[in-house]
Amino acid sequence: MSVKAAENFSRESLEQILKRRFFYAPSFEIYGGVSGLYDYGPPGCAFQANIIDTWRKHFVLEEDMLEVDCTMLTPYEVFKTSGHVDKFADWMCRDLKTGEIFRADHLVEEVLESRLKGDKAARGQAVVEEEDDDKKKRKKKVKEIKNVKLDDEVVEEYETVLNKIDGYSGEDLGELIKKYNIVNPATGGPLEPPVQFNLMFETAIGPSGQLKGYLRPETAQGQFLNFSKLLECNNERMPFASASIGKSFRNEISPRAGLLRVREFLMAEIEHFVDPEEKTHPRFADVKDTKLSFLPKGVQEAGSNELKVTTVGDAVATGMVDNETLGYFIARIHAFLLKIGVDPARLRFRQHMSNEMAHYASDCWDAELQTSYGWIECVGCADRSAYDLSVHAARTNEKLVVRKPLPEPVTVENFEVDLDKKKFGPKFRKDAGAIQKFLLERTQCELEDLSKELAANNKIAVDIKGVGSFEVESDLIKIAKVQRVEHVREFTPNVIEPSFGIGRIIYSIFEHLFWSRPEDKDRCVLSLPPLVAPTKVLVVPLSNHADLAPLVAKITSALRKEQVPFKVDDSSASIGKRYARNDELGTPFGITIDFETVKDGSVTLRERDSTKQVRGDLADIVNAIKEITYNGASWAEGTSKLAPFETAVEES
Amino acid sequence: MSVKAAENFSRESLEQILKRRFFYAPSFEIYGGVSGLYDYGPPGCAFQANIIDTWRKHFVLEEDMLEVDCTMLTPYEVFKTSGHVDKFADWMCRDLKTGEIFRADHLVEEVLESRLKGDKAARGQAVVEEEDDDKKKRKKKVKEIKNVKLDDEVVEEYETVLNKIDGYSGEDLGELIKKYNIVNPATGGPLEPPVQFNLMFETAIGPSGQLKGYLRPETAQGQFLNFSKLLECNNERMPFASASIGKSFRNEISPRAGLLRVREFLMAEIEHFVDPEEKTHPRFADVKDTKLSFLPKGVQEAGSNELKVTTVGDAVATGMVDNETLGYFIARIHAFLLKIGVDPARLRFRQHMSNEMAHYASDCWDAELQTSYGWIECVGCADRSAYDLSVHAARTNEKLVVRKPLPEPVTVENFEVDLDKKKFGPKFRKDAGAIQKFLLERTQCELEDLSKELAANNKIAVDIKGVGSFEVESDLIKIAKVQRVEHVREFTPNVIEPSFGIGRIIYSIFEHLFWSRPEDKDRCVLSLPPLVAPTKVLVVPLSNHADLAPLVAKITSALRKEQVPFKVDDSSASIGKRYARNDELGTPFGITIDFETVKDGSVTLRERDSTKQVRGDLADIVNAIKEITYNGASWAEGTSKLAPFETAVEES
Repeated sequence: MSVKAAENFSRESLEQILKRRFFYAPSFEIYGGVSGLYDYGPPGCAFQANIIDTWRKHFVLEEDMLEVDCTMLTPYEVFKTSGHVDKFADWMCRDLKTGEIFRADHLVEEVLESRLKGDKAARGQAVVEEEDDDKKKRKKKVKEIKNVKLDDEVVEEYETVLNKIDGYSGEDLGELIKKYNIVNPATGGPLEPPVQFNLMFETAIGPSGQLKGYLRPETAQGQFLNFSKLLECNNERMPFASASIGKSFRNEISPRAGLLRVREFLMAEIEHFVDPEEKTHPRFADVKDTKLSFLPKGVQEAGSNELKVTTVGDAVATGMVDNETLGYFIARIHAFLLKIGVDPARLRFRQHMSNEMAHYASDCWDAELQTSYGWIECVGCADRSAYDLSVHAARTNEKLVVRKPLPEPVTVENFEVDLDKKKFGPKFRKDAGAIQKFLLERTQCELEDLSKELAANNKIAVDIKGVGSFEVESDLIKIAKVQRVEHVREFTPNVIEPSFGIGRIIYSIFEHLFWSRPEDKDRCVLSLPPLVAPTKVLVVPLSNHADLAPLVAKITSALRKEQVPFKVDDSSASIGKRYARNDELGTPFGITIDFETVKDGSVTLRERDSTKQVRGDLADIVNAIKEITYNGASWAEGTSKLAPFETAVEES
Repeated sequence: MSVKAAENFSRESLEQILKRRFFYAPSFEIYGGVSGLYDYGPPGCAFQANIIDTWRKHFVLEEDMLEVDCTMLTPYEVFKTSGHVDKFADWMCRDLKTGEIFRADHLVEEVLESRLKGDKAARGQAVVEEEDDDKKKRKKKVKEIKNVKLDDEVVEEYETVLNKIDGYSGEDLGELIKKYNIVNPATGGPLEPPVQFNLMFETAIGPSGQLKGYLRPETAQGQFLNFSKLLECNNERMPFASASIGKSFRNEISPRAGLLRVREFLMAEIEHFVDPEEKTHPRFADVKDTKLSFLPKGVQEAGSNELKVTTVGDAVATGMVDNETLGYFIARIHAFLLKIGVDPARLRFRQHMSNEMAHYASDCWDAELQTSYGWIECVGCADRSAYDLSVHAARTNEKLVVRKPLPEPVTVENFEVDLDKKKFGPKFRKDAGAIQKFLLERTQCELEDLSKELAANNKIAVDIKGVGSFEVESDLIKIAKVQRVEHVREFTPNVIEPSFGIGRIIYSIFEHLFWSRPEDKDRCVLSLPPLVAPTKVLVVPLSNHADLAPLVAKITSALRKEQVPFKVDDSSASIGKRYARNDELGTPFGITIDFETVKDGSVTLRERDSTKQVRGDLADIVNAIKEITYNGASWAEGTSKLAPFETAVEES
């Protein structure tokens, strides 16, 4: 199927159709809506379900992953440990007079961009207007857009700031706001310095109101917390992956750009647990020749956006992509996105720069899709190292480790602590437990120092935050190097995490596959691949003639039996109009029933993008539809046994 | 497949297996867990996904429903209008001394039950212990269980109270607690009178903290709010149904009984919109002969539990079930539940008594499944009448109606109000708008009264709550009967709502299909239907001999290509042990690879429940599996062309 999407793309026209045909719409619209919340209507919901079904087959079934479904409600302690309570936040500025709240980085971005635009206009240069509706609405209120020429060095400074906007801390943003005299754009009023706003929705679990909880901002933690059970499900074998599909929530300060930044969204996440010393992948050979467009961090740090097109094999061999497992998943993500309709020319893998990485990640590559809003992060592929399992294990005292038999036993020498516990109680009373715990949790390096201290002074000084300072004498403690033979290696696995934002992928695919027919720009087509199209077949009787009705029933019953999703359009509109309405919905096939059908049972099959038609027996036509939709046959392959069919009036 | 579930059922043994094999487990277990929250592990998650897939085919696809996916976060106003803010609550009692909180009805129930048990013991009668773990744990703490004989009339009184426990108001419960001197069972301390506790989780949307929101307690409201868009999607035709699958949340006061009462759960809900004057159903004839077990409200109100077994056709004809549409859905619910494994002998449809109906329902039948916890409501089938659409329309001033062309135009006579709006402003100033709105919103009946008042006094008195009292004189208003010819009937549809609690269904099916082999009670079997079983096939090589490995690869590749979910068990355990492990998981088929396979490519196929085996070519075996799993063939039908195979050692 040919896709003519990018040419003459009109976002307005796409968004109007998506809304009119109820692919999605603002939630609670009759109540005025709530920004950042959207409902999927029937075609959007079916498209989403088909994408999820494809995802499950592509990843969970094909790779034998362990799928879990964990709760969204999560107690405070879990996100305190994972770091989200302290670090999962954006910076916001308040206007104390009007009560308005701005997301600090977006505010700096918009004000500087509008000043640069004013400068261009003052210099008599063309200004490109390509903004989303939200932004336009906000801009209307902006007082300060005057066409003021700026000094050349100011222009350069603004541009540098804009390029680095994702990397600033709250303090940095506060300084920029002061330095560039950024105020409330609508009123000119002053703003408070940026403060952190945590993006998690908070609630109370249970009737007492005492147990604070959050709605999860990602599905990952549920998978980490179940690690030991999952390892057991996998017969203690490594590596393995878990997977989860479900809603997550982020209380965005100022949601915008439709489905691209929302407060409730569907995620599909994989946590691949791997031995940190063995990040090879058994199926890497299957994908190593896949050619991809990479944007490594070095290139970006040098201020460029030039893509490096190379194979995954080469990317791993040269060290650009850290290891085979990461490379394998990047290639699998690429294959999945193409399967569901992404235009490969508008897909790139961008490596995170160190200043923009999430607090848990040690390396990260984003699959970004190009849209009229720019390049959008749609899939993250992060190496979370051993971060999550380690912090949860430390907090709960549960071991989240793998024990692997060693091929040969090894002798290891470690400092060990030997406490005379009976003497601790009488000596330290209520603090005895805390002191013992403190001593038993020291690292090898710390123990080495302590052993020297003990040898030198016959005692050691112990300083425990919140408990106190103590001296432990040598009759209570021995610290010595001990040799042991080990048969098992115990380690905390590393985690490679491919994480899919389904709503963002859906919107980007709409942009990639939307076009209008050259002969009539009002006839729009959404060229969704048959595999994921909401409806596969439109059944169209030529007229309302009574002879045709039993044939409609016969054909729909055949399609229902074969579980091919279809719709009937027996309205009085022209055939051409009925097809046009379903081209908008992305329905790939049409079956027309006419008076020939009454005579010999034959029907025509129409292909959406080319409007080509073939004719044949119902059984052969249904077979062709199934071959193309579910078995990956092309139109030519699927219809090779069917007769071409020409009609002058069909598309009128 | 034969099911031997009910005989010698042991809940302890079932729950131990469900936990050990990670069908589900308490969420955040390594943090100590949070009651009422559970995670589904790989087999539970796959079982759930298969049930949802079957649900979608059975209802959405087969009945052409419009599936939507609406947000869980919902603003306050929506639930204020729907009545949930005021009425979606349970009654709780606090012990101010210990801080403990009790759900009032559960507390009364438990205390009276334990007193009755004590009475029985005192009389020397046998006491049946068949309680869940939670309850046992709580009971352990109960101080007051003494074997005290009660007066005969007290016993009778307690039994009457227990039978009516679902119907008491908060005030009633308070009186019972006083009357029967019910105290904190653990401490004997006094309790505060019952207060309402709203079961919705509350949160704040957006950074200001000003927009109060809730997590939805049902998916229904999102469907109602999108009614007009859905009607348009359906080309303005009636009747039609929308459907939604997603998580809902209820902040239970004291969750218990595992998956049966939880705080976050998966629902699948249908809203069937129907003309209140035309509740027939075009496909009713297809289901009218289905025989079902009914428990109508009349029987219950007479204090009996006797089931009425009759056909759906008869139930509707006699008026026991109100209309064809309700009857149709009851039959379809029945068919669905049987398809996924429910034991028909342990399924009944119970009608709600008027005092237990939800605030929005005008009639309701529950599909209840019998478990060791008693009969459990798993599917509700409520007639919500026009309640929801009416209240949202009134609140938002958006019309949520259907306009249907009348076969013949009709003349209608109505009171109409004619206001001289120009005079309102000068006379009533800031209140003018409110007074006009008030007058235009009067019902026909009210207008008739007002017209009389106006004729009698030349003015009317208007009393608007929160605004004030006014007099409107006859130069500002006319009220008269006007005749009009109408070509269209405008009406608010009624809603029939089948609503499925997936977790409850899942747990009940486990109980219905769990049994242990008579020859060895430790060999447990979960007889899940192949259609919904998490894994369809276990592939078992007879030994680790190198000759067998390539055959495993060949067979798994064939199964993967046919998208039949499978697992390989190539551990060193005996064949019998490996099968036993997968009988617990509900895996219906086993393929054994042995040295004959090396010679001629043939494999054996084993059926879980009967342990029967057949032998044949791989292609024929895979075909048999697909026929039985996906096309509803029986074991005999599916394997009719395969040779029976006997082995003495298989199950050892």
